[in-house]
Amino acid sequence: MPSVRCYDCGRSADLADRKRCRCGEPLWVETDPEAFEWPTGRNPGMWRYTDLLPVDPPSGVGAAAGGTPLVRTPRLDVGGVQSFLKDEGQNPTGSFKDRGSAVGVASALDRGVERIGTVSHGNMAMSTAANATGAGLECVVCVPADIPDERLSHIAHYDPEILRIEGDYGRLYEVSLGIEEVEFVNSDTPLRVAGQKTVALEICEAFSPETPDAIVLPVSSGGQLGGIWKALHELRTAGLLEEFPRLYAAQAAACDPIVRAFEADEKEVRAIEGGETVAYSIANADPPGGNRALAALRDTGGGAVSVPDGATRAAQQRLAREGGFRVEASSAVAYAGLERLVERDEIGSGERVVTILTGHGFKESHGIDVDARTVSLDELASVL
Amino acid sequence: MPSVRCYDCGRSADLADRKRCRCGEPLWVETDPEAFEWPTGRNPGMWRYTDLLPVDPPSGVGAAAGGTPLVRTPRLDVGGVQSFLKDEGQNPTGSFKDRGSAVGVASALDRGVERIGTVSHGNMAMSTAANATGAGLECVVCVPADIPDERLSHIAHYDPEILRIEGDYGRLYEVSLGIEEVEFVNSDTPLRVAGQKTVALEICEAFSPETPDAIVLPVSSGGQLGGIWKALHELRTAGLLEEFPRLYAAQAAACDPIVRAFEADEKEVRAIEGGETVAYSIANADPPGGNRALAALRDTGGGAVSVPDGATRAAQQRLAREGGFRVEASSAVAYAGLERLVERDEIGSGERVVTILTGHGFKESHGIDVDARTVSLDELASVL
Ligand SMILES: [Zn+2]
Ligand SMILES: [Zn+2]
Repeated sequence: MPSVRCYDCGRSADLADRKRCRCGEPLWVETDPEAFEWPTGRNPGMWRYTDLLPVDPPSGVGAAAGGTPLVRTPRLDVGGVQSFLKDEGQNPTGSFKDRGSAVGVASALDRGVERIGTVSHGNMAMSTAANATGAGLECVVCVPADIPDERLSHIAHYDPEILRIEGDYGRLYEVSLGIEEVEFVNSDTPLRVAGQKTVALEICEAFSPETPDAIVLPVSSGGQLGGIWKALHELRTAGLLEEFPRLYAAQAAACDPIVRAFEADEKEVRAIEGGETVAYSIANADPPGGNRALAALRDTGGGAVSVPDGATRAAQQRLAREGGFRVEASSAVAYAGLERLVERDEIGSGERVVTILTGHGFKESHGIDVDARTVSLDELASVL
Repeated sequence: MPSVRCYDCGRSADLADRKRCRCGEPLWVETDPEAFEWPTGRNPGMWRYTDLLPVDPPSGVGAAAGGTPLVRTPRLDVGGVQSFLKDEGQNPTGSFKDRGSAVGVASALDRGVERIGTVSHGNMAMSTAANATGAGLECVVCVPADIPDERLSHIAHYDPEILRIEGDYGRLYEVSLGIEEVEFVNSDTPLRVAGQKTVALEICEAFSPETPDAIVLPVSSGGQLGGIWKALHELRTAGLLEEFPRLYAAQAAACDPIVRAFEADEKEVRAIEGGETVAYSIANADPPGGNRALAALRDTGGGAVSVPDGATRAAQQRLAREGGFRVEASSAVAYAGLERLVERDEIGSGERVVTILTGHGFKESHGIDVDARTVSLDELASVL
């Protein structure tokens, strides 16, 4: 059973006993990175980094997680800033969540847990259900009672047990972690975060021995950001990273508790009354890993930025129409965030910046205006 | 300009002069594999194999093509046959087509071509449009005049010039290759096939020094199958492959001209009157690369199999519900084909078989029956 530790007060515990620290903060899985080196073996995807993970590589869909492309995209440069994209849509269920689900499921299998669960109505639900069934585990997905049909259908493709929850969906996160019959792998639980950190290992390895200047990502619960921060510390301990890339959190303006706390110089994120946004999958008004996310932003000299929906939609269009990347709205928040950070001179000309595209846009079926002309086959040559 | 050669009559040509041989068969790009070794460099994805490609690695979305996971999936074993899946849905636009588009676009850019085109109403259209815009090229997509709105919308996200073609859509393939103002990168043109072959390089490298016993894939125009066959010969020339994996083509029963020709021991595939199938993206009644596909099946000791839609839908469900892989119908044809080949004893117990999942299923929005129960937060613990 992995041992876990609190980033804030330093307390350790056994994962079997608790998923959050007595002080209230999220815990993460301890590792031993002193002797870690960039791997030379043939483990695929994120499983290259098994030495820094609490489980061995699994078979099935979990083995297909991570290992996503990191590409230089000159057509998407912002001013003089060099754009790189990390395309997490190229995961088995189309989002970054597969990294954490794969670790959570593999660990459950190791320990003889037969039934896992999650609290989500989006990517995490699909990802957990897919990874569970790929390993032969049962899966329970708790969704809000009023979930739209389209989203429910996406989850149901993997045939988990789906429970529509009536009552305070926000409170469910905490309630679920206290249930013993099912192991919940929620967004900032230690095993999920252990998987999520591998995205930073991949980014840093791709740049090594150099380092990107900054990483911009959409932030919801704060789990992925916490994992990335952990990875940076591990690589520094291993002697593989001298300077940290600055981490920047992008949130939708309608629901941006972490940005607000960062700007107000608070140490703690306060729950807010969140509004509607096209980036619904990152609209977390009371992020369980918010304080740790704040600590990560400050420790790396980064920052936080809010993005109105109009700018998100424009960024989504630019990514597809100029870059060839079709992403979901929440991923476009990160790229729009980059544009604003450059405007505000927080990211400067000549810097190399990685934007994490957390999920592809093929699950969102919103229609668009189509401009198509009809021509007969005979006139084609002359039209062209 | 790459030089091209005919697999059948052996004639060579310059790609600038012709895309098909005088004898009528498709041409492929010549390479020099004698000295090829498994790469040790850091080129990402399919660009590891630059020594066997007619172009250098590009930037942008094209750089993100290929490098997809190959995973062992014990839960999807068929009888005693060991199942491996190659998940081509993990490409930038969600299908295997990105490999060929990336090579076609990179080559066009090299040669100063400014406008490329394709004839497709599905994956190839999206892929060509995305790769073109990612490289700053203009793109023309020719679709049938009666294309459904949903499919048109998927293509339009990348904002290419879309032409709805009235007239014989089948003839358009040939007509388009004669147009000089636009370079068409159709499904079995030499540059596209050069890119498509990289999937076989990846499969063989993952197994090396061993070899999988068989590879099963859905076949439409025959372009990918031709590319895979080419790759096997290159690896044998390089001394990296002793025995060929047997190649098996799976087609929808409603439109299976290659299967029919194979079973009738014909050397040439004849155009048929194709019917409707859920696997619409592989319903090619007159495959331009059909004869070459037949030659590949026979040269490797493989075969061909037809799959009725019912079996395809069942395979699609099994892949998602037991494997965690959500694929489009045409990919499920390959897995259903595997099931039938095992039934027919063409693939035997203990053999290791790679099924190529050519595209993910997130673009197909067909509804499914959802079985979800509503519970209140307070009763959750007791329900679980
Ligand atoms: Zn603590
Ligand atoms: Zn010829």
